This record gives sequence, structure tokens and C-alpha cells, in this order.
Amino acid sequence: MAAAVEKSAETPGLPAFLAEIGDVPTIADPQVVRRRSRDFFWYSPILNAQLHGKAAEIIVMPRHETDVIAIARAAARHGVPLTPRGGGTGNYGQAVPLKGGALVDFTAMNHILWNRPGVLRVQAGAKMGAIDEALQPFGWELRLHPSTKRTATIGGFVAGGSSGIGSVAYGGLRDPGNIGAARIVTIEREPRVIELRADAAQKVNRAFGTTGLITELEMPLSPAWRWIDVIVAFDDFMAAVETGRAIAMADGIVKKLATPIAWPIPAAFADIKAHCPDRKSILIAMIAEPFIEAFRALLGQGVVTHEAPTDESAGKVPLYEYCWNHTTLHMLKGDRSITYLQCLFPHDRLIATVETMVATFGDEVPHHLEFSRYAGHLTASALPIVRYKSPERLNEIIATYEANGVFVANPHVYTLEDGSRYRRADADQFGFKTEVDPYGLLNPGKMKSYIGKPWKPA
Amino acid sequence: MAAAVEKSAETPGLPAFLAEIGDVPTIADPQVVRRRSRDFFWYSPILNAQLHGKAAEIIVMPRHETDVIAIARAAARHGVPLTPRGGGTGNYGQAVPLKGGALVDFTAMNHILWNRPGVLRVQAGAKMGAIDEALQPFGWELRLHPSTKRTATIGGFVAGGSSGIGSVAYGGLRDPGNIGAARIVTIEREPRVIELRADAAQKVNRAFGTTGLITELEMPLSPAWRWIDVIVAFDDFMAAVETGRAIAMADGIVKKLATPIAWPIPAAFADIKAHCPDRKSILIAMIAEPFIEAFRALLGQGVVTHEAPTDESAGKVPLYEYCWNHTTLHMLKGDRSITYLQCLFPHDRLIATVETMVATFGDEVPHHLEFSRYAGHLTASALPIVRYKSPERLNEIIATYEANGVFVANPHVYTLEDGSRYRRADADQFGFKTEVDPYGLLNPGKMKSYIGKPWKPA
Repeated sequence: MAAAVEKSAETPGLPAFLAEIGDVPTIADPQVVRRRSRDFFWYSPILNAQLHGKAAEIIVMPRHETDVIAIARAAARHGVPLTPRGGGTGNYGQAVPLKGGALVDFTAMNHILWNRPGVLRVQAGAKMGAIDEALQPFGWELRLHPSTKRTATIGGFVAGGSSGIGSVAYGGLRDPGNIGAARIVTIEREPRVIELRADAAQKVNRAFGTTGLITELEMPLSPAWRWIDVIVAFDDFMAAVETGRAIAMADGIVKKLATPIAWPIPAAFADIKAHCPDRKSILIAMIAEPFIEAFRALLGQGVVTHEAPTDESAGKVPLYEYCWNHTTLHMLKGDRSITYLQCLFPHDRLIATVETMVATFGDEVPHHLEFSRYAGHLTASALPIVRYKSPERLNEIIATYEANGVFVANPHVYTLEDGSRYRRADADQFGFKTEVDPYGLLNPGKMKSYIGKPWKPA
Repeated sequence: MAAAVEKSAETPGLPAFLAEIGDVPTIADPQVVRRRSRDFFWYSPILNAQLHGKAAEIIVMPRHETDVIAIARAAARHGVPLTPRGGGTGNYGQAVPLKGGALVDFTAMNHILWNRPGVLRVQAGAKMGAIDEALQPFGWELRLHPSTKRTATIGGFVAGGSSGIGSVAYGGLRDPGNIGAARIVTIEREPRVIELRADAAQKVNRAFGTTGLITELEMPLSPAWRWIDVIVAFDDFMAAVETGRAIAMADGIVKKLATPIAWPIPAAFADIKAHCPDRKSILIAMIAEPFIEAFRALLGQGVVTHEAPTDESAGKVPLYEYCWNHTTLHMLKGDRSITYLQCLFPHDRLIATVETMVATFGDEVPHHLEFSRYAGHLTASALPIVRYKSPERLNEIIATYEANGVFVANPHVYTLEDGSRYRRADADQFGFKTEVDPYGLLNPGKMKSYIGKPWKPA
């Protein structure tokens, strides 16, 4: 272990850091370290080039908050960069260490601390699929999850995500009530443990772990309905969009997902090919079982090609794994040249704008929409597939979307500022970072406008 | 009993009707018949004059569907008008028999038939308060209820209501999914029992019982949260409105009620006077306990004057009994000259329109709003208090609202057509009535555009 560390060491303080954290488990095997230093940034050809070869020097695996405090203390005392990591399912390189140091793998901190009707307290490294499984007997489940639910951790989702499956009902993580509380450890020579409640918890949301090491989260729960996976086929993508919107707007129908997907994207869905008729666009939905009759009454010309309870058991593929950024993954399986964007359509000109963008880009940008609530309005997120030509053309496409009033959160950049709507880190998060990470040791390079005070030995 | 019937008899077939229904319980005491022939139409000075003295000739009290079928058969055979009645808590005279005949009191048909997560099957005469009490151990409750929940029946709500407490989350009864199914008995010489499912169930919604005798309903349920009643005081009504809207728009905060009430209305709330500071407008809200922190973070300049779990036990007054049309009741206690209107504000110009109407009418029309979802948008219903001067002035006020884009469902008329937005009965309901009530014996006079084929002895 010591040999491997020495071999790739770039951080002078690392040996002292390792000595100080004592019996905290570590992994130094360079292959494992390199593999866990990656996430799904390779969906982007641009990030794939930029982040190639970036890796930590060591993995540390805290077992409990005491370990996290030891890691934070040792990092602050010896100037070691720390990059927190959950399931590594992000797409922006948020878990890729840009400056070496230690990767803090939270997956051993996976205990549910308590749950009561509507609320869960859980360690940050718990996988979201495992959480829902554990909550099932209580009749509750997480409100929101990414399409990577089965492998993503709750801490990674809060630190790197924004919305996902469930957003059609509850909005995004930034909406009040969607993160109950976060407990963090600061990176100081005498680390503090801070409980951030209600809107204060937003200081860690989509900060890529730059604003404290998250140890625990309190998350809202929704009833664990018996969900029905449905596929509905339409001759025309816009018919799927309009039907999807009608369902999303029907406040009496409990739903978790409403995703219109334009042909030819469904041609890439090999395992559900039987339910994806040739040349048809589809609508994928998750509907609570008691409302399936009301749902069917809204389908218009759509033809149901599949209807069965959502099955997340081993070997089965729930339909949400064809939506959000899993759609991109299915396309990539057949064509490694494609990539994607991340859009938010304007709620008050939704249908017209979708129609315009579909007509403008044609087959260069096949669309799928994720109906979502945003700031109280129903609108659509979208992760359109882009048949990639060059960075210049990609930027042209982004500019065209923006000229049509579509917000683009660029997924081809790895800093918070470049990816965010406002091209700067959230003001609160920036200010908060000065308090909790004075030396800028947490995931350095991701909040690019933040320059910590230089680390010096005490 | 026979004597009383003869005394007030206007319907020649009544004695034969009574003979034919056999042992179905009846009440002929004229005082009881007159009292149960009324509802809360007296909130309107206009209806109070028009409906004065209207009464049934007899009350029949079915114990089960077999009784209902017997009543329907006998009515069709002997030409007896039937007016169905639940708790008699309506405000439009919907339960007032205009043509005598029999009042069908459903309150003995009050059994829960079954319930499972998210769905309830119940007899139409069950009181909504009793339903929620029975469901509490299962962790579920009705999604929507009127402010008269404790005395209103579920059948009466579906037949005469449109929205209420819960609409801020789920929209109204007309929204898909909010009525699962209705079972009805037709008024024919050989009555049929029809199950109306999903959107077909809309044929009985707000039809005042003119489209079949409802015997059973299948209704969606929502989790029985631990609800917190909150009062927040504001210097200014518009601040209460804007805060209420922010809360209503926060999709992550589970809420059941958000009601801004302008001063001086709260001066009439004698029993909660201590929580209604002098000259302050208030916001009344019901928030699920896990989201009270997120709620508090949105209050701005508002000051919480009361926060306690909703208490529906005997002798206690839950805050929803100060909202919707209960507000009118509290005002009437101190001033019998006031009345009210029923408005729906435009969702896309909500705040500006409220501001204009408040400024236009001043103290002549004190406002309170009920944030509600309507067709997928958050907007506000309102039952503004009107300091009544004359029918002409009332019509001027209605016209002024309408000129400002506010829909008014006139509560000073007793027919479906005059009260509805489109000034005619819903087309489906009209067509359906010809199938289920060919002689027009059900609540005659309420669907005024319907003329049944003249009843003749067989």
C-alpha cells in the first residue's frame, strides 16, 4: 500500500495524512484508485478528453462520522485535497479528483438512522435503491431519484443532482421541503460538525461536495405506491408530448415519471424492443396503480404497448432506466459518437418551443422530455441526444436553444460555474465555502471562482 | 304518518309510492320534513326569498341499495319527484325539493365497503369526518373535503361540490383521478344499477343529484399526515396573498390549505381572536408536520400567531372551519346583511387581478382567497364577502369581476345552468340524464334546460 502511494504521490502531505487517520480503511491499488476516480463524464466527448487520466492518489473509506472527522482534520493539517464520492454515477466529472489527494468513498456509511411517516434520516453513502427497499415495509419511499437509483448514493444525488424521477410531482432538490437537513463536517484543523436545516441545507445541493463533507441527510418521503410502468406509442412525437403534458398537469393522477421520447431513440432500446413499435414515438410513464384508469382516459390516439408493475428486482429493468440520462446510455451503446445536452424549457411556451426546437434540429438532435415541476410550474427538462460533430457545432446548438428561451445547463464542463445557469457558483455556497473549507481542499477546481487561503503547515 | 302526508300532498302518486316501497323507513312529521328540506341557501338573500317554504312531502331513508332501487322503481311507476339529500350542507338549494315529492335522505347508507392504499369504496351517505376517522388507523384520508367535512356526506360533496380543502394540492373533483367511480340507480320502472368509472363518474359531479341516485363512491385517498394548523399575521393583505402563493407553489411542501384573509374579516373569528391581531390580515394554512420548517422559511414579514396540530375532536374547531364558505358563516353571525360570491381568479394574472379587485371594491367586498389548483395551474378560488345592498348592485359586482377576467359561479341561483360557468348544464350530464331519468323526476327544476317526457301511469 505504501509503495503504491509513493509511486503516484503528488501531495507532499499524504504520508502524514495517512499516518494520522490511523485505522480508517484505505485502498491504494492504483487500478482501483483510477477506476473509482472516474464517473460517467465520458458521455461528453469534451469532458472525456479534459478529464482523461485524472485520479486520486489514495481512497479512504470512512466507516462513521468519527472517521470523517479524522479525515477532515488530517487533510486540513497536511494540505491534502479531498474529493468525496458516492456511487460515481454523475455525468459532470464531479467525483473526479483534479488535484490528486484522497478520494473519500462514502459507500460504507450506508445506515438508515431513523424513519417516520414522511421523513428519513440516513447516512450519506446509502444507495437510493437500498433505501427504498428498506422503507418499503413502512409504506414510504424517496420522493426523487436519478435514473441511476440502484447504484447512486443519496449523498451523491444531493451533492451532484438537481431533479429526476419524481420531479413531475415534487419539483427539484432546490425546492423548499425537498432536502430536510444535511449534516456536514468542515475541513479545518479542528473540524466542526454542522447541521444545516431546511433552506440552509441548500448550501450543499449541487455543490459537488465543495461545501463540506456530507455525513447525514434528512430527506422527505412520499407514499410507496404500487407503481405501474407504462409505454404508450404515438405516430407523432408532438402527440406524445401533448399527452404527456396533459397527464403531468392532471393533479389528481399520482405519477412519478412522464417522458415522451422521439423516434428513432426507442430503436436503441433493445430489451424493450417488443413494446417500441417501428417509427413510433413513445411516452414512458409511471402511474400509481389506483389512477391507471384515469390515466388511460387521457391517452387520446396513443396505444398502450406495455403496462406492468415497476420491477426493480435483480435482472429486471424498470422503465425509468430508459429515461433521463439513461436514454443517452442506451443510445451510446449503439453509437459512441453521440452525446447530449441538458435543457429546461420555458413553462409558458412549452409546447410551441418544443415544436420549434424539434423542427430546427431534426435528426441531429433527437428529443426526449422529462416533465418536471420547476418553481411551482409544470415544464419540461430535456436531455436531448446530440449527434456530435465538433465543440463549435455543440456550442451553436446551445446558442440556438438559448435564443429560443430554453435554458441550457451545459454538461460538457466540469466546474459548478460553467455548468450553472448563472455562470457563477451560487452566492450562498461560495460564501459558505469560506467558512467550511478555508484552504480550498474540498474537490479543488470544481468551484473555480473560489481561491482558498494558501495552505501552510501549522 | 299517513295523515301528515295527506295534509301536504301535492303529488297524486305519493300514497301508491309509499305503499310500494314497503318497509323503507320514512318520516312524515311536517316539522322534520320542512327542516330537512333546507340547506344553507340562506347565505344568499336572493335564494332565501326564492326558496322560502319549498319542502318535500315525505322523507324516505334507504338502508341499502335494495331500498334505493325500490324507491326509484316506485317513483318511476307513480310519478313521484325525488330529491336526494346528504348532510344538507350545500349553499345553492341543491337539496331543496322544488316540486314536493320525497326527500331521499342517504345518511343511513354510511358504510365503508372497502379501502386499500390510496382508494376507498364507501356508501354515499357516509359523513366525510367519519370516513377520515375510520381511515386514520390505515394512514389514509380523503384528498378533498369541504369546510363542512364534519357534517357533510361524501355523496353530497360529489353531487354538489367542486373543490375545497386539499384543492391546493389535488385540484378539484372534476380533475381526472379525483373521483374513482360512482354507482348509481336510475329512475325507471325497471331501475338499472350503473357503475360509472374514471371520467364517466363526472356525470354525477356537481349535477345536484339530477343524474341518478348515487349509492356508492370510489374515492382516491392521500396520506393522513399529521397536519399542523397555522395562522400567520401580516400588516397587509397582499403580503399574505403573496406569501400564500409562494407556499402553494412550493411543490416540496405538503399542504392542504392556504387561505389569505383580509382584515376586517378576522375580527369576526371570535373563538380564535387571540391569534388574530387587530388590523392584521392573516394567512391560514394546514401544513404536514415534516414540512413546517420549510414552510416557516417562506413567511417573510409574516408573524406566526398560532401553530398546533389540527384538532377535529368534539368541541374543537379545526382552522379549516374558518375558510372556504365557513368564513361567510362567521361573518353572518355578527351581520346577517352580508352575503358572498364565488370566484375563480385567472392563474396567469393572479396577483395583479387580486390587487385590482381589492382596490376596486374596498370594504364593500372583503376578500379571502383559497389557493387551489385548477386544470393543472395554481390559482385562487375566492368566496368574497359582499356587504349586500341590492340584487342590482350584486350583479354589478359580478359584472366587474367578469370584466377583469375573474370567473364567477353565481351562488345566488339554484339551477345548474345559471350557476355554471357556461350557463348551461354540462353536455354529458344533460345527455346522460335522458338515459337515467327519462321522466325528469330527480330533483326537478335544478337542471332547468331538461324537460323529461311527461310521466304517465303505465
